[in-house]
Amino acid sequence: MNASRVDYYTLEEITARFGGELIGDGNIRVGAVGTLERAGPDEITFLANARYRPLLASTQAGAVILAPTERASASVPCIATDNPYAYFARVAQLLHPRRSAPPGIHPAAVVEDSACVASSAHIGPFVYLGRDVVIGEEAEISSGCHIGAGTRIGACSKLYPNVVVYHECQIGSRVILHSGVVIGADGFGIAPEEGRWIKIPQIGRVILGDDVEIGAATTVDRGAIDDTVIEEGVKLDNQIQIGHNVRIGAHSALAGCVGIAGSARIGKHCTIGGAAGISGHLEICDHTVITAFTLVTKSITRPGVYSSGMPSMAHHAWLSNAAQVRNLERLARRVRDLELEVSRLKGEQS
Amino acid sequence: MNASRVDYYTLEEITARFGGELIGDGNIRVGAVGTLERAGPDEITFLANARYRPLLASTQAGAVILAPTERASASVPCIATDNPYAYFARVAQLLHPRRSAPPGIHPAAVVEDSACVASSAHIGPFVYLGRDVVIGEEAEISSGCHIGAGTRIGACSKLYPNVVVYHECQIGSRVILHSGVVIGADGFGIAPEEGRWIKIPQIGRVILGDDVEIGAATTVDRGAIDDTVIEEGVKLDNQIQIGHNVRIGAHSALAGCVGIAGSARIGKHCTIGGAAGISGHLEICDHTVITAFTLVTKSITRPGVYSSGMPSMAHHAWLSNAAQVRNLERLARRVRDLELEVSRLKGEQS
Amino acid sequence: MNASRVDYYTLEEITARFGGELIGDGNIRVGAVGTLERAGPDEITFLANARYRPLLASTQAGAVILAPTERASASVPCIATDNPYAYFARVAQLLHPRRSAPPGIHPAAVVEDSACVASSAHIGPFVYLGRDVVIGEEAEISSGCHIGAGTRIGACSKLYPNVVVYHECQIGSRVILHSGVVIGADGFGIAPEEGRWIKIPQIGRVILGDDVEIGAATTVDRGAIDDTVIEEGVKLDNQIQIGHNVRIGAHSALAGCVGIAGSARIGKHCTIGGAAGISGHLEICDHTVITAFTLVTKSITRPGVYSSGMPSMAHHAWLSNAAQVRNLERLARRVRDLELEVSRLKGEQS
Repeated sequence: MNASRVDYYTLEEITARFGGELIGDGNIRVGAVGTLERAGPDEITFLANARYRPLLASTQAGAVILAPTERASASVPCIATDNPYAYFARVAQLLHPRRSAPPGIHPAAVVEDSACVASSAHIGPFVYLGRDVVIGEEAEISSGCHIGAGTRIGACSKLYPNVVVYHECQIGSRVILHSGVVIGADGFGIAPEEGRWIKIPQIGRVILGDDVEIGAATTVDRGAIDDTVIEEGVKLDNQIQIGHNVRIGAHSALAGCVGIAGSARIGKHCTIGGAAGISGHLEICDHTVITAFTLVTKSITRPGVYSSGMPSMAHHAWLSNAAQVRNLERLARRVRDLELEVSRLKGEQS
Repeated sequence: MNASRVDYYTLEEITARFGGELIGDGNIRVGAVGTLERAGPDEITFLANARYRPLLASTQAGAVILAPTERASASVPCIATDNPYAYFARVAQLLHPRRSAPPGIHPAAVVEDSACVASSAHIGPFVYLGRDVVIGEEAEISSGCHIGAGTRIGACSKLYPNVVVYHECQIGSRVILHSGVVIGADGFGIAPEEGRWIKIPQIGRVILGDDVEIGAATTVDRGAIDDTVIEEGVKLDNQIQIGHNVRIGAHSALAGCVGIAGSARIGKHCTIGGAAGISGHLEICDHTVITAFTLVTKSITRPGVYSSGMPSMAHHAWLSNAAQVRNLERLARRVRDLELEVSRLKGEQS
Repeated sequence: MNASRVDYYTLEEITARFGGELIGDGNIRVGAVGTLERAGPDEITFLANARYRPLLASTQAGAVILAPTERASASVPCIATDNPYAYFARVAQLLHPRRSAPPGIHPAAVVEDSACVASSAHIGPFVYLGRDVVIGEEAEISSGCHIGAGTRIGACSKLYPNVVVYHECQIGSRVILHSGVVIGADGFGIAPEEGRWIKIPQIGRVILGDDVEIGAATTVDRGAIDDTVIEEGVKLDNQIQIGHNVRIGAHSALAGCVGIAGSARIGKHCTIGGAAGISGHLEICDHTVITAFTLVTKSITRPGVYSSGMPSMAHHAWLSNAAQVRNLERLARRVRDLELEVSRLKGEQS
């Protein structure tokens, strides 16, 4: 799908680089990744989910990455490894390296005098870099981005077009921010007084650790007083809202449309499913899993899987059941009364 | 509300163009659409919902579009038609044509040499067109848009300001993308390895069919390996997230804030209500209706209406009921025990 | 955290300006706000929530703003006031004034001839101002914003980078729009006809009252025929979707990720929690509180607190309970049957 020059690697070169057990002809050359279903003889694919095993017999791929236990099923050369999906990720990075933009500042960018841009960095057209901005080596700031005064962007980070980072924020190295991301907007800090809201200036910052990736149109608010912190290796999908003073522990991953209210603290190595919500001022411990559509209103202190998303059913049946939910306390009382009656009846009988 | 030149049409001219039965004076001229409540004598309105029928008697509109069965209630000239809302849509398009921007490339745009822009297309200021981009006839790319290398935009498509389309995507003809839309950002593809996440390059594309419209700040991720596909005539509202490898069938419509997880396949002619969520790797058949706030976790194979959104009630009552939901399995067991006891009691009595 | 010049104020100067009772040395000077936990001797903090009271004894802050009832607990100079949080907001505004951008139009902006920009306004680089746009005194339009033809921006309003306001909208004075906000995109108006959707031109406007603040990536659609109206003093958090023809009453506040469907009317002084949803064409009365994750499908006519968000629990327990919800109507019928049986048994016994 990619019109640019392709580099080919033999399976031997790949296993020399990444390990794994080579099964079959090591001289096979591949230049791209593909799916089990559609990969051609120049492409390498993977099997990480048993339900796709039937496709192994018919795949036209040049090679397959799979677990040692699956090797018997394959009809083509294989690389056997304990973690085929991670191995595939590395091979895909090798075959499909990120296109890097040429170094230099586009003449249609506006860069304040006191900004400091590494010579190997790329600054695209229509980019604005404020006072005292620092852009690290090999960083790429694509067209239409705005970097506020005093913000630092680490080495090798990539900002896709139309990202905004407000003033005084710290972005680590190898960070990826997709288009429409907004980092450092004011948190929702308002105080009620006589029926009106008074704005509380938001003077904290946003700190993004190294290797953070943030999906399109996700927003991370700056801290009210202290900082909002996303630790290293965190992956955020699209359309997520992170409130002020939130801390997300290292290597956690959040799916699309999640909302984290202000001052919540998410542990390390957590995963949060799509459109889940975390209330403010609570703590989620390390290694917690929250499933999609779940609302968390209290701190979670034991690792595990937590849920409250209600799966769908036919509309009319759902309406009847939902109506019963609204009478559930009464129903429970009626069951209690029945238990008393029945125990009385049993007493009278005996 | 629109300061620009207005074109007037007589009711006769309108029915000549769009059909329908004219009732009353065909020489009445209208130059705008309005609501039953507020339209003036130069405006035409419609009745498509019986609950607004009482307004028919008092409307000051110049004319009303309505169903044949409603014609008796009207006090002003009418156009009777079986689908008044669709008829109204066509009249509104006639009276309020889209303003088209002048052809040409604004001097403050940056266009790579190998990009190909139709002479009738409009490219606004601060637009960036990457290498090998193709912009079709009469397409409008408004200020601040970024079109990545190799992407094609079809004829008569309109991109509102600050839209981003990443590289290698295909946008059909007559497509409308509202501001803040991001097409083709990386899908959420990460593989866990020893407590860290390894990025999987996303090498698929996004393909948008003809006549697709996408609302403000909606994001459609590119495919991981194969493509993400939105078929012709699909309408997406604002703030929607479409994951990688999703396919949405022709003429489906999704309301605001919906999330579709990766590799889900939505059929044709489906409608999905606001903030509903569809889990990954499942299929929804054609002509399915999902109501607002519903979570779909399994494939749907029969057309129909599906729900799981729980309507609100007073907070304290809700808290009691929600607490009971959390004990529901125990309650069900208690009911089973009661049934056994009662059947035993009946046996002893007889 | 802010490298710029700091102004210091004595506690006496602060109480002279904002009232409150000064307890302790009025010559203490503060130049920033801080948290109870981390503020230093040059900083002023506040206590508004009893659970943070234990920190009062150990705080290193120069002064604390608190309620008169808390004054005995403080170890440092205090300002006692009935609404410490609102008082703190005013002090924070004093110590951390908004940075204002210099007046003038950046040479890299594009301003149509008929646009009218106040001489004290700031227009940043890569801004586009359409025909007949009016920008008020001391307004700031930051880099990458697009203001459509005929739109007016009131005095002292601030648009952060990459905001889009479509044509013919009205933005009040002292309005704040954060990055990624889109005002005035087309509402989701489509009419079905023979399996396809016909677009209904959206000819209404968006009207934002004075002192409205809108968070990052929030979208407010223009009206279909009449206008979408956000009244004065409304505060919208990030990632919110406001459909066409919605009206939000003065001084209401909506948390992140809320969705309001078309033609809903929200009263004044309402608060809506995160990710709540309001169906279309209904009315919520003044002073209503909707909690997070709640779905409102019917009008609310009595002020109060309303909910339907289901709090999370351990996944396996939740699965069992959720399965029971899907059988709830049947369970209720079984309870009814039991009640009949038991009453029959009692009758036979007596």
